[in-house]
Amino acid sequence: MNKTINLKTVNLNADLGESFGAWEMGEDDTLLQVVRSANIACGFHAGDPAVMRHTVRTALAAGVSLGAHPAYPDLQGFGRRPMKIAPAELEAMILYQVGALMGIATAEGGRVTHVKPHGALNNQACEDATLAATVAHAVKAIDPELILLAPVRSELYRAGERAGLRVAGEIFADRAYTDAGTLVPRDRPGAMIDDHDKLVAHVLRMLEAGGIIAQSGKFLPAPIDSICVHGDRPGAATSAHMLRAALESKGWTVAPLPALRAG
Amino acid sequence: MNKTINLKTVNLNADLGESFGAWEMGEDDTLLQVVRSANIACGFHAGDPAVMRHTVRTALAAGVSLGAHPAYPDLQGFGRRPMKIAPAELEAMILYQVGALMGIATAEGGRVTHVKPHGALNNQACEDATLAATVAHAVKAIDPELILLAPVRSELYRAGERAGLRVAGEIFADRAYTDAGTLVPRDRPGAMIDDHDKLVAHVLRMLEAGGIIAQSGKFLPAPIDSICVHGDRPGAATSAHMLRAALESKGWTVAPLPALRAG
Amino acid sequence: MNKTINLKTVNLNADLGESFGAWEMGEDDTLLQVVRSANIACGFHAGDPAVMRHTVRTALAAGVSLGAHPAYPDLQGFGRRPMKIAPAELEAMILYQVGALMGIATAEGGRVTHVKPHGALNNQACEDATLAATVAHAVKAIDPELILLAPVRSELYRAGERAGLRVAGEIFADRAYTDAGTLVPRDRPGAMIDDHDKLVAHVLRMLEAGGIIAQSGKFLPAPIDSICVHGDRPGAATSAHMLRAALESKGWTVAPLPALRAG
Amino acid sequence: MNKTINLKTVNLNADLGESFGAWEMGEDDTLLQVVRSANIACGFHAGDPAVMRHTVRTALAAGVSLGAHPAYPDLQGFGRRPMKIAPAELEAMILYQVGALMGIATAEGGRVTHVKPHGALNNQACEDATLAATVAHAVKAIDPELILLAPVRSELYRAGERAGLRVAGEIFADRAYTDAGTLVPRDRPGAMIDDHDKLVAHVLRMLEAGGIIAQSGKFLPAPIDSICVHGDRPGAATSAHMLRAALESKGWTVAPLPALRAG
Repeated sequence: MNKTINLKTVNLNADLGESFGAWEMGEDDTLLQVVRSANIACGFHAGDPAVMRHTVRTALAAGVSLGAHPAYPDLQGFGRRPMKIAPAELEAMILYQVGALMGIATAEGGRVTHVKPHGALNNQACEDATLAATVAHAVKAIDPELILLAPVRSELYRAGERAGLRVAGEIFADRAYTDAGTLVPRDRPGAMIDDHDKLVAHVLRMLEAGGIIAQSGKFLPAPIDSICVHGDRPGAATSAHMLRAALESKGWTVAPLPALRAG
Repeated sequence: MNKTINLKTVNLNADLGESFGAWEMGEDDTLLQVVRSANIACGFHAGDPAVMRHTVRTALAAGVSLGAHPAYPDLQGFGRRPMKIAPAELEAMILYQVGALMGIATAEGGRVTHVKPHGALNNQACEDATLAATVAHAVKAIDPELILLAPVRSELYRAGERAGLRVAGEIFADRAYTDAGTLVPRDRPGAMIDDHDKLVAHVLRMLEAGGIIAQSGKFLPAPIDSICVHGDRPGAATSAHMLRAALESKGWTVAPLPALRAG
Repeated sequence: MNKTINLKTVNLNADLGESFGAWEMGEDDTLLQVVRSANIACGFHAGDPAVMRHTVRTALAAGVSLGAHPAYPDLQGFGRRPMKIAPAELEAMILYQVGALMGIATAEGGRVTHVKPHGALNNQACEDATLAATVAHAVKAIDPELILLAPVRSELYRAGERAGLRVAGEIFADRAYTDAGTLVPRDRPGAMIDDHDKLVAHVLRMLEAGGIIAQSGKFLPAPIDSICVHGDRPGAATSAHMLRAALESKGWTVAPLPALRAG
Repeated sequence: MNKTINLKTVNLNADLGESFGAWEMGEDDTLLQVVRSANIACGFHAGDPAVMRHTVRTALAAGVSLGAHPAYPDLQGFGRRPMKIAPAELEAMILYQVGALMGIATAEGGRVTHVKPHGALNNQACEDATLAATVAHAVKAIDPELILLAPVRSELYRAGERAGLRVAGEIFADRAYTDAGTLVPRDRPGAMIDDHDKLVAHVLRMLEAGGIIAQSGKFLPAPIDSICVHGDRPGAATSAHMLRAALESKGWTVAPLPALRAG
């Protein structure tokens, strides 16, 4: 995000507020005790207005910074289905979702400080520079102070920088990386790092090295501002909790995204 | 809205941006040359994000002030189906919709300055004080400077006043009123005022008298800030255009809602 | 349903297939071992096409008869929000949902044999004779052999009879009844029968008496064809399992709805 | 479709029932006097249940055969946005939509006799053999007597044949073809055949030659069972009407798809 930040400060983020209507999902209460920034579903893949408001309220109470988590309009597919949407339409969809969360945040006395695209939109924007530019353009148009939270070394990260946005680079705590700096596909051996000690060691090594360490051992420098943890698998929230404790025991300060400012 | 405003200033408003996806509706281009304030559909009954953005852009270009037109979640029924939604959920839905439009307005360099509920939500809030209070509470929570545009003498109008909001009272140009100050139901004789000369004369008489003149001739005092015109029937936009010309020829200034401030 | 059926045969039914997309709900696997007829969500309040197909497949494998569970178009409110929909539109919505399930059932080699409205649609149709007639008319129009599963002594039950449909009368295992034969509202004392032994005793007494036994002890005769059990509260599926065992130990045969035919 | 049909019999088809809720689209009344088979929107890209029922009723009254026009779940994008949906989910979606139309058709005393995918689903299935097989498999699963209406020489056509379905091959009246037998993209010169005389001449030449005649003049043999006309552009319905008159004046019988049976 910025070369002058304290290298021993890092953010933890998670996707929250992914319930919808009568359906509950996730371990939000536990995660809110762990992460410092929440990516809050905005109604297109999950999260109805009442869920969004509840999530904003509980995040604010926990001192967790608020981020919008816009997605493709795909409730049934949870925003995971690749789609092809005209840039002008997609840009308007992002404005709509981010604005909706801002409205709810305002009513709760809070403020949306970052945006992270969800699911297929995020995946496609990490590889497609045009799509990434559309996302970055939308974020900038609604509030140029917003932080774009994007995977390190992705097209989305670069698009944010090109747009003049503050960009926070994230890594995934429980995923292995290829030599290209992308995630090892889930169906490949070792893609998921399930062993908790290995997960913590891997994250710490990357934080301390200042970049991605691929499955092969290859090092890819990249400023790491945030670590994405999950709550959607059994034990995931507990694992995230232990990761935070391990980080703090090694002298890392875990801070909300807006606190990762340049000095 | 305020007892000290220039009595010869009035607003004209219309529902705009009610297209959706591939479906077009309304005579927005014509109406934008007539009205000074637009009630813009926010995606729940009509108006997808791209339509919203286009409407915001063209309204701003025409000097028409921006209002959110939140509705029940009922795209298929165009928000006209009565529903019963828990107050906390409805309040969050209003925050969501108003916020979404604010996000889009911000990206276009504009600002949402009023809110007018749509369809069944509006109708029910005009008669149900609890529902009206929910609407007013939501509007105040997102921005206490927002003007609530509500039918004169309605529960919604009163709820806005009780909440401490600026309230603009509207009448409908093409509808007859009962002695109770409510609209004559559409299926009753004379409910719709189709004859243009009668419509203009009726509106002018009410504006000059400062209140509703019912079908029976009964007078019901009510500050009139705005006249609602429609574009959804053949000839409606043209009729609205002629109404504005008639108002101006009688010395009335037609202004955007935010300009109707107390002196 | 018919005065000549074996009085010692009864049906158990439950709402199934209420997951949606990434969201899971209910204890379908357990309930399918208990009930003999499934009310399957049809996409309007829950149940996407893939969930519907999975539910049909597993119900058929368990020998459980298939019923459509149409609802108001209200995914976010789980079909529990009262709505007012024009009869012709509602009728078409019911045809649509029942037909959709029939299409999926056909592809799985099964057949839809009953219809039970869901949530607010069911509640409103139990009290509103016009709405009830609309539901019955829709069911008859799509297949006059379909069984309408309706609460005993309800307007919906009577509308089914008037339409010449086979009607199966249901009682709710875990709910107390008023002297009017309606359910004691959930917020009243004793509304929910949580104690399992009491629940079983109450159901058996009603079955053996051939009618409703209200909280006051008042008896209201009504042919009871089916008992509705739930899986949406902790322990509910287990409770349903124990109810079935108790029924069988008292000599009751638990059969699918289509097997409750007149001799 | 079948080598033994009367070569002077051909079908005309069009997409109908594409209104939704308060939004109207298309010139259905005119087209129903022209075409003999209707591809009826099933609610995913257009066409709510009431619109579907109205379309079924008017099609039956006009002697027009009923076809389901299933689409991706994309109301806002009118089903034109490419999506990637897991085969099992897509198959269930097609069953759902076709079943829904069947339910409505049954209630109106009619029968669905063909299926034609809509928009992006159709386009992608014409090029992707796996997707095409999913579509064909769904159609066969719900009713093996259904006719699959597919562009001539497409993967979808071939998938239908491989599945053992009756397949009707269609050409587009107003589009030019490439040497590969695919449509010239809309943004290329000459892609749309707007001149009515040219359109008629082109269609007649292809019908009489028994195959595609590309822009270059290249001939690609393909049994032509149906001609797709449109009603979504000004004058399109009139053009379709004139095409039918021209076909009949040249001795062609215009028949519903089910009448194109092998002798």
